[in-house]
Order: sequence, then C-alpha cells, then structure tokens
Amino acid sequence: MPGLLLRDGRPWRAGGPADLLIRDGVIARLGPGLDPGDAEVIDLGGRLVLPGLVEAHCHLDKTLYGLPWRPHSAGPALADRIADERRHRTELGLPDPAAVTALLEAMAAAGTTHVRTHTDVYSGVGLTGVEVVRDVAARLAGRITVEQVAFPQSGILANPGTAALLEEAIGLGVSAVGGIDPAGMDRDPVRHLGIVFGLAERHGVRVDLHLHDPGSLGVFELELIIERTRAAGLAGRVTVSHAYALAQADAATQDRLAEALAEAGITITTAAIFDFPVPPVKKLREAGVNVACGHDDIRDLWSPYGSGDLLERAMHLAYRSTFRRDEDIEIALEAVTFGGAGALGLDGYGLTEGAPADLVVVDAETPAHAVVTRPPRDLVLKAGHVVARAFGSHKV
Amino acid sequence: MPGLLLRDGRPWRAGGPADLLIRDGVIARLGPGLDPGDAEVIDLGGRLVLPGLVEAHCHLDKTLYGLPWRPHSAGPALADRIADERRHRTELGLPDPAAVTALLEAMAAAGTTHVRTHTDVYSGVGLTGVEVVRDVAARLAGRITVEQVAFPQSGILANPGTAALLEEAIGLGVSAVGGIDPAGMDRDPVRHLGIVFGLAERHGVRVDLHLHDPGSLGVFELELIIERTRAAGLAGRVTVSHAYALAQADAATQDRLAEALAEAGITITTAAIFDFPVPPVKKLREAGVNVACGHDDIRDLWSPYGSGDLLERAMHLAYRSTFRRDEDIEIALEAVTFGGAGALGLDGYGLTEGAPADLVVVDAETPAHAVVTRPPRDLVLKAGHVVARAFGSHKV
Repeated sequence: MPGLLLRDGRPWRAGGPADLLIRDGVIARLGPGLDPGDAEVIDLGGRLVLPGLVEAHCHLDKTLYGLPWRPHSAGPALADRIADERRHRTELGLPDPAAVTALLEAMAAAGTTHVRTHTDVYSGVGLTGVEVVRDVAARLAGRITVEQVAFPQSGILANPGTAALLEEAIGLGVSAVGGIDPAGMDRDPVRHLGIVFGLAERHGVRVDLHLHDPGSLGVFELELIIERTRAAGLAGRVTVSHAYALAQADAATQDRLAEALAEAGITITTAAIFDFPVPPVKKLREAGVNVACGHDDIRDLWSPYGSGDLLERAMHLAYRSTFRRDEDIEIALEAVTFGGAGALGLDGYGLTEGAPADLVVVDAETPAHAVVTRPPRDLVLKAGHVVARAFGSHKV
Repeated sequence: MPGLLLRDGRPWRAGGPADLLIRDGVIARLGPGLDPGDAEVIDLGGRLVLPGLVEAHCHLDKTLYGLPWRPHSAGPALADRIADERRHRTELGLPDPAAVTALLEAMAAAGTTHVRTHTDVYSGVGLTGVEVVRDVAARLAGRITVEQVAFPQSGILANPGTAALLEEAIGLGVSAVGGIDPAGMDRDPVRHLGIVFGLAERHGVRVDLHLHDPGSLGVFELELIIERTRAAGLAGRVTVSHAYALAQADAATQDRLAEALAEAGITITTAAIFDFPVPPVKKLREAGVNVACGHDDIRDLWSPYGSGDLLERAMHLAYRSTFRRDEDIEIALEAVTFGGAGALGLDGYGLTEGAPADLVVVDAETPAHAVVTRPPRDLVLKAGHVVARAFGSHKV
C-alpha cells in the first residue's frame, strides 16, 4: 500500500506542528517536512490531530439508536427502569443488530476508534447479547474495535446462574468481567467481589465494576476493591465505573482513596450523566489515578440522551467538573483518549512513531477549544484506513 | 407583501398538524388545508414548528464570540474572575460590537427571536455597554429583539454611583433593572432591594435580580423579594435569576417558596451551567411558577463555553434535572419558549392566530426529541421575515 502523508497537522502532545506518514496501519514517521515518497498527501492546514477517541463505558446491547424516537416509558425509580427494561426488551427485539451497527458507525464517524461495552448477562437473556455485539463488531472491525465486558445487570448472587454465564461469556471472547453494586444489589460485597476477581484471576480477563452505591457504603466497597486488586496483583487491569461515593466523600477521604487507587493501579471511569455525582477527576489525576470516560446509556430504555460523540461527552465531563482553563479542560479530553486507552490496556496508543494510525482531525485552535465546540471530524483514521473524511469548513 | 404559507407543519401545542399562513408579520391563519392565495408556499413535510426561542438570561456585552480562542485566564475563585474581567476588559475592547453582532447572528440563526441581556453598569464602565448593545441590537432588529437589563455587576452599595447609573440607563431605554446578591455582595439586602424596586416603581421597568447567595441566606433574600414584589404590586414583572438557594433548600422549604413565588408572580430563570445548583423546575411549574432559561455567559472572560443555541441550553436544563420522559423534557423546552416570553412580558407570544410570526422549524419527531438531538434549524421566521432557511437533511 502506498500510504498516506498527513501534511501540516498539530498532533496533540507531540511537541509542535508535524507531518504524519502513515504506512501499513501505523504512524511510520512523525515530524516536520517529511518526504511523502509515493504516499497520498492530505493537507491538514494546521488542524489539530488527536489520537483515536476511546469510549470506555457504554451499553451497545441496549441501544435503540437510529430507530424512531421512543419516549422514555419507565417511572422515576431505579426499580422502575429495571422492570421497564425487562418488560420491553423482548418486544423491541433487543439487542438489535441494526441499532448496534448504526451506533458504532456513528461513533466511528465521530472519531472513536475503540469501545468498551458492558453487555447484559443474566438468566433470561443468557449470552445472546454477547453474540449479537460480537457479530456486529466483527463486521465493523476495520472501522472500530469493540471489547465487551460481561455485565451482570441483575446481580450475580441475586440472579442465580449468572456466575456460570459470566464464565461462559469469557469462553466467547469477552475481555473483561463486570460487577454491579456488590453491597446494594447483591447484599454480600465480599462474595460478589470474590466471584468477579476469581474469574479474572482464573481466566486472565480484566475487571470493570459498576459502583453506584453511595456514601460510606460505596467508600467501603472501594476499599474492598483496592484490597482485592492488590492481593490479586491486578494493577492496571481493574476499573471502577461511576464511583459516585468517591464524588460524595469529604476531601480527606477523597485524598486517601485517590492515593490508594493510584497505588493499586485502578482506573476510575465516569460518564458525567444527568445530575449524577462526578468523581473529582482533577484530584484523581494529580494523585496519578488513571481516569476514563464514556457515555453509559445511549438512546435506550434507560436514557433517551446520548449521541456517541466523545468530544461531546468530554464537554459534559469538563462542564460538570467546572473546568474553565485550557489545561483543566484537557483533563476531560485525556479521559476520552489516553485514559480510555489505559483502562482498555491498548498497547502503543498515542500519536508516536510506531503507534497504530488511529487518529482524528478537527479544526480547533487548542484541544480545549475542540472540547468546547465539538467541531466536525474532518478526518478519521483507524489503523491507517480512512473511516471518515469530510474536509470542509466549520468554525465557531 | 404576498405572505408565506407553511404547509404541513406540526406546531407545538396547537392541537395537531396544520398549515400556517403568515401575513404582515403575524400568523394570520392556522389550520389544516389552508388556501395559499398569492402566498409563497414552503412545504414543511410534517416538521415540528416551535415558537421563536427566548433567551432569558445572557451577557452580550461580555462576549468574545467569533474571536480567536482565548484560554480562560482567571483563577478558581469568584473574586479571581471579577479581578480578571476588570484587568482584561479594556485591553480586549469590551464590549466588542463585532462579537456582540456575531453572537446575536448565531442566536438568530439558531431560532432565537428574543433576548434578555444583562449589561454591566458600574463606575468605570458607565453606560458604554448599554449604548454598544443598543446600537448593535438596533442594526439587527429585523432578525432578533434584544431587551437590556441594567446590571450592577459590582454591586450597588458596594460601588458608589451605580444607583444613579442604573437610573440613567433607564433613560437610555433599558427595560429592566438588575441586582446582585443583595446580602452576599452589597451587605444590606433591604437597602439593595429598596433601590432596585424603587427604580422599578418610579420608572415602570421590570426587575431581574442575580441571586447566587446560598442556603438559608438565599432563602431569606427570596422571602424579601417576594414581600417586596407583593407590596409593590409587581406580579409578572419580577425575575430571580439562578436562585441557587432554591435548589439547595429542603423539600418543605422548596414547596413553601414555590407557592409564594407563584402567588407573587415571580419568574425563576436558570442557566443550568457547570455543576451549579439547578432549581427544582418541575416542582416550580407544578406550583404555577413561571420558569425561564438562558445561557448566562457565552464565550467570555467568565466562561469559555456556550453556543447561543437554546435547544442545547434546554438539553442542559433537562439533563441536569434528570428528565427522561417526554413530558418532563418539554418542561425544559417550555423554559426556552413560553417561560422566557413570560419573563420578558411578550404580548401574544405563541403559535396562535394573530401572534407575531416568530417561529422555528426543526426535523424532530417530538418536542423532547428536538431537545435531545438539537437538529439544524430548517427555517426561522422573525415577525414573518425569513432569518434562516436551510431545508436540508439531518436526522439522528
């Protein structure tokens, strides 16, 4: 293949304006004034180049994306939404391969090159979701990489048979095992975490736990997760999603947990949705904790909101964090790029020579400007292949 | 003039699909199957028609909209932002007529037909802002209507001479007098409110007070404002913007205040920005309180965020209010339409025969869908004149 020379870009965190020579799916060279040789040249006109965006937390199997608008039908309580989903998911034919496809295509066009999705696994739905998402993902593999977490939406202990299904899901190729509110939902945090971490240790998969439990209960569970992660030697392989308790804790407790999470190598993933608590991402980053970000629900029975655009998601995170300064807003951009890559364990991620050529080009003056205005994606490459190319103009 | 027939629209809250016949700047007729006569026909293809959007709270005089990206330069505290603005506003040439023009044009193109803006009035800046905004607004009067609030950004008592400037501003045509944290900033809530309401009573202008003061202090000030409004007989002419204390109060206090605000005819305007408290808009509406919404700062020294698009602002309000159901999301849409019209006292506002032909057409299945996806504005009319017309396609 002749390759591609991206002339006159401003790659983020790559030390100044540069050309990028793309060959065999990787960034072969990066620097000023590169010789294109036989490569096709695209003039970026000084545009900003970001590494491919990484969606660290969503639920593809639930989405109704691209289908006609469906007014939200659940009552106000969590139990209402769980019951509503159980009632309607069959009638709606979920997971819907067409909707999953439409959403992944929208994500790819918006510059997302990697996705972690939590797929429901519980008695009643079994492993259908894992298979549907796997098959759709296989068809789109050239445009976007999908990794699944086997997610016990209805609990593990509370839903007998789920532990065995999680293990079967690992056999089907999911790369992480999930969990949910070990105390609040499953009523036995130690046993719940024992099952999840046991699967991770036996099968070498990663861990990504939903933790909505609030206040001191959630703090206690974070402590248990930290202890378990250390004991199992799983640094860099465990994520806690949402972690509302971390947002609610007093400053001293946040400081203590941030240090312990950093030392244990645990990622915190936030979605910054609705009015829900957002962990103190700046404090976490300053303590050395990896922070990732994702949409959570997108146009499904749980939430009518969500677009799949991770720059928009970064805006929500920056906004809810009251980030005004460029260097702060970049923390949110980092969460949808390097932070997600850390959570997923992507090798060689970033805009460096030898890295996979996963990148997105936008017309923005600074990275913070890109988060604030979310400009169109002028060029998206996945492993060197053009996923979206719309050189045009749009600037606010 | 031959007029315009909008064929096959779905006007919001107008009882079903209808045509709209626009003549002499008003909606002359509304109903199915209208005879166009000599009017130009635009086929809306079943699109949703909303009344013109009403921006109820912004600061046009501060904006840097359309200028090159300027990283936020203030420190984290409120005092830092006030000092930063004082330091940089002269060097930046604020208010900047070009930036004000660019923002108003963007607002108009996004379907906003009326704007209330708070213009700084204090010793040092005098009435320059009022004059600049007035002159720009006059040039754009065919596209968007601007009304100014004379806003004592640095306090009234704390900034000697401001009371006289507020009165002078009224002479220059501002339609409302503002205030700011009568206790927290000016240290004497009764005197502060005495000056503001005194001006309103003497000159027949409206009142729109910034109230950020938190907790029981803010609740006390709301009580004072309610008492003052009743005593002056200013029902329907007083707005409290932000009202964080109302968001922070316990449910019983919220209930009591909601009832009193409704009875006094006071509007609550919220911006739902950053992580700042959002008043309980559903509870307020259920109690009969008029609720409006605006952007607050847009791309200025206070905030790098903001687009001028009120559907986006409605999304933020709905999102922060954790509105999922269509009927709840419509509360946010109501705030940027009818609620704003109530705050500004717009006569005959709405999609009814005889009303000014201020409207915006979008491709959305329901009003809530429009808030969630914020589709392009396919047609915008201001007093019957075409402000924006981009019949094209975009649908998520």
